[in-house]
Amino acid sequence: MTNARSWWGWGTDAAALSTAEVDELVARVATLLPRHDFTDHAPPPPDELPVPAPRIRVPDSLAAMVSSAVTDRLSHSRGKAFRDVVRNLQGDTSYVVDLVARPATEQDVVDVLDFCAGQGIAVIPYGGGSSVVGGVEPRLAGPSISLDLGRLDQVVEVDPVSRAARIQAGVLGPALERQLRPTGLTLRHFPQSFEFSTLGGWLATRAGGHFATLYTHIDDLTESLRVVTPAGVSESRRLPASGAGPAPDRLFLGSEGALGVITEAWMRLQARPRYGETVSVVFDEYAAAVAATRSISQAGLHPANCRLLDPAEAFIQAGEDAAGGLLILAFESADHPMDAWLDRALEITADHGGHAGARRARDADTEQRDASATWRSSFLRMPYQRDALARRSMIVETFETACTWDRFDALHAGVMTAAQDAIDRICGGGVVTCRFTHVYADGPAPYYSVYGPGRWGSTVAQWDEIKAAVSDAIAAHGGTTTHHHAVGRDHRPWYDAERPDPFAAALRAAKGALDPAGVLNPGVLVD
Amino acid sequence: MTNARSWWGWGTDAAALSTAEVDELVARVATLLPRHDFTDHAPPPPDELPVPAPRIRVPDSLAAMVSSAVTDRLSHSRGKAFRDVVRNLQGDTSYVVDLVARPATEQDVVDVLDFCAGQGIAVIPYGGGSSVVGGVEPRLAGPSISLDLGRLDQVVEVDPVSRAARIQAGVLGPALERQLRPTGLTLRHFPQSFEFSTLGGWLATRAGGHFATLYTHIDDLTESLRVVTPAGVSESRRLPASGAGPAPDRLFLGSEGALGVITEAWMRLQARPRYGETVSVVFDEYAAAVAATRSISQAGLHPANCRLLDPAEAFIQAGEDAAGGLLILAFESADHPMDAWLDRALEITADHGGHAGARRARDADTEQRDASATWRSSFLRMPYQRDALARRSMIVETFETACTWDRFDALHAGVMTAAQDAIDRICGGGVVTCRFTHVYADGPAPYYSVYGPGRWGSTVAQWDEIKAAVSDAIAAHGGTTTHHHAVGRDHRPWYDAERPDPFAAALRAAKGALDPAGVLNPGVLVD
Repeated sequence: MTNARSWWGWGTDAAALSTAEVDELVARVATLLPRHDFTDHAPPPPDELPVPAPRIRVPDSLAAMVSSAVTDRLSHSRGKAFRDVVRNLQGDTSYVVDLVARPATEQDVVDVLDFCAGQGIAVIPYGGGSSVVGGVEPRLAGPSISLDLGRLDQVVEVDPVSRAARIQAGVLGPALERQLRPTGLTLRHFPQSFEFSTLGGWLATRAGGHFATLYTHIDDLTESLRVVTPAGVSESRRLPASGAGPAPDRLFLGSEGALGVITEAWMRLQARPRYGETVSVVFDEYAAAVAATRSISQAGLHPANCRLLDPAEAFIQAGEDAAGGLLILAFESADHPMDAWLDRALEITADHGGHAGARRARDADTEQRDASATWRSSFLRMPYQRDALARRSMIVETFETACTWDRFDALHAGVMTAAQDAIDRICGGGVVTCRFTHVYADGPAPYYSVYGPGRWGSTVAQWDEIKAAVSDAIAAHGGTTTHHHAVGRDHRPWYDAERPDPFAAALRAAKGALDPAGVLNPGVLVD
Repeated sequence: MTNARSWWGWGTDAAALSTAEVDELVARVATLLPRHDFTDHAPPPPDELPVPAPRIRVPDSLAAMVSSAVTDRLSHSRGKAFRDVVRNLQGDTSYVVDLVARPATEQDVVDVLDFCAGQGIAVIPYGGGSSVVGGVEPRLAGPSISLDLGRLDQVVEVDPVSRAARIQAGVLGPALERQLRPTGLTLRHFPQSFEFSTLGGWLATRAGGHFATLYTHIDDLTESLRVVTPAGVSESRRLPASGAGPAPDRLFLGSEGALGVITEAWMRLQARPRYGETVSVVFDEYAAAVAATRSISQAGLHPANCRLLDPAEAFIQAGEDAAGGLLILAFESADHPMDAWLDRALEITADHGGHAGARRARDADTEQRDASATWRSSFLRMPYQRDALARRSMIVETFETACTWDRFDALHAGVMTAAQDAIDRICGGGVVTCRFTHVYADGPAPYYSVYGPGRWGSTVAQWDEIKAAVSDAIAAHGGTTTHHHAVGRDHRPWYDAERPDPFAAALRAAKGALDPAGVLNPGVLVD
């Protein structure tokens, strides 16, 4: 056990579940699934796996930043989806990058792109490697280099007047916040992957933060971008807003490494929150809970949290017995007490029959000392639990979407039915739960979790079959194939159907102009 | 005098200033500029102007939707910038569209594009014709058709649950709000051009509404777009949010007719406001007024209005003697009283030495009956005054930008100096004023007005020289060439310098894919 990143699973070896925690978890699941085979399948020693030798010889000028170590190559060849973790556990080495490059400067990035464009070698930009959609995997016959931006990890410049900072793309969440702390400012972007994902990854995948409303998508926190492309470096002007043509940054936000390599960005910051209150509201009827959540999202109150857990999710995540679901509400501000805001939100929940618990003040001191501390203790542990169960043939995975409110009832019913039918058919039973991660005035972003007993050796195929069934159901009901997990390689069929054809033609043309050799993350977004 | 649109100036003939109003206006300006020659130069009769015959013969299938009337052609060949109005007054007919097409259906739009692409005829999409940047003018040697979408003017479908509506692009502001009124919902998008601009125009130019913060840009009110391109019809899915690749709608928002013709959109609506309060705050020092405005913009209060007028603007627009400027604050909501919000904003202004006037409750009944009524009486009259003065050789024009807060002091000083130097040199004196139209946590959008005595026959050239000087100053201080007036043809040199080169290459490639014949609004955005 070391503090090093796990090559096969989530996070670090040191933070993985202890033996006692695993035993407790397995015992809990076993009460629900007494007939499941919980045999543990430990990861194989990576150095003993059959990994082909690298097919690339880099020039001397690049040699110092390149690694061909097997563990490096394996750990950079997959993201951290359930299907990635299980394939690692099974010793599946079907797609492995030939080399890992670690540029220390933007010029290093330019040099790697030049070399790869000249040689026709695929370059896969790599931030924290937490993709759950196959975004960093070389599903290619030809050679590839993983371009790990982890050495570009500095907050370079802070503008306290405009509340913005110029930040290198390879910085992980905790290091970013640590560097900002002396300024009293925060990016306040806390995706579940916060510890193991980077600013550049958030930008390239249009990540969504923990906060339920308003400025929580990384898109809206972006003031300007600097992007290295084979056609040159693109740098937009720092601006609070502009109406000068189609927004340049919006082409690169969500481009998933296929149009260029984001090397740094000016990001909008906020003062660290000082005021806040949170409360949980229990409902008897799920329809009333949804209606209350919709009313709050349309009231212009902008809660920091507005997370509706369905009854199963409320039971599993919060230990609450809520027949109609549990709504977690929170308001926070750096500037003023939020009582009036929460008062009004609770009037709305009461109008819909909600039973509010005690109002709890935000613990400003704790939060200010270490916002990520709270996370570690609960939400951030979930992927480690997922890994422990994946080793024991359980299928534990999530999928997410967003749709307009008018379509939610039908989409939710259709998706729940499709998911339950699929796990009943494929696993002989299991559980599907739902929560809203984000809400908008015109619709929610529902997030589903699937728990099913699998068969060792088949759990990837079993999950892929479930995933296809639920993705079809989402598309049939007008949802998006992804609200904040990105497209990668896994969502391509549904993304291709969702995206308007003329826009696809424009995007292909844009890629042709920026990456004429087609070396940037091939297979992502366009062919 | 009729209710018809003016072919040469702003709005309708019927709404233009009365003789008494003109006399009063001229007398007021004459007290400031006693030596100026206020001779009135009336517009020439359009039918007597030397306009070449149309060079295009349309097939019979298009004949019924096409007009070759001279007044139609003239009125569609220019926007409503000062330089457009003056050229009309001077009988300058150097660039005139050959025909005006008025499609009644989306298929008509497709048919016109097919015809024009086949024949190499330029197509200039036309909404309300209120462009102030040369966006609808055929500065071309070859033939062109103005594609007036005014017959596509219906709210087609309303979704009251998600609060959204499917709306045709050619609808003017008042007709749009009139059709929404029975639902209790509003788009709440009120640019100064509200009466004479269309949804499609707002979308194609990334228009900014009257509201100072939060959801005021048309970009953020857009749920999905339907766009006819020569490469096919692009329709995005209705979604509250998505992380599936670069946002398709963001490519067409701000595309100014160069990538396609927006025919309809699903737009996000809001409940009509019921609560609101407004107050004016006078400052002794402009720096303190700017600091207070910045604090409010960073406090998370989201005022509906937060308009800082500099002393000259406060005097001219509001008759207020405010040595450090006047801040107009307003909060509004459909859901709850806004006292707590305004209380906190006034604490902030007091901290910066502001003297607040009386708080006035919003008159909900009046506002609900006709939101545009308030506008007509003041803000909406300004362009008519501009026209009356333009006829009398005055240079009356505006320009606008946005920058980060850290750069504002230097930008403002640099721009004011450049503008004052230019009008002193070119006009022998004049006045420049500034107000903030919008504020963001990371910067303001300053909007400048120029009043200078010109020489008849030279006022366009004089203004162009002033405009070039101020645009250079804006660029030198890191501002954008336009915050909400679009690029058109007039901002091209500064837009080309502002836009990152690789993005320009991507945009050219996208245009090549969507408009291979290059017939869509040539000269706008890309060559």
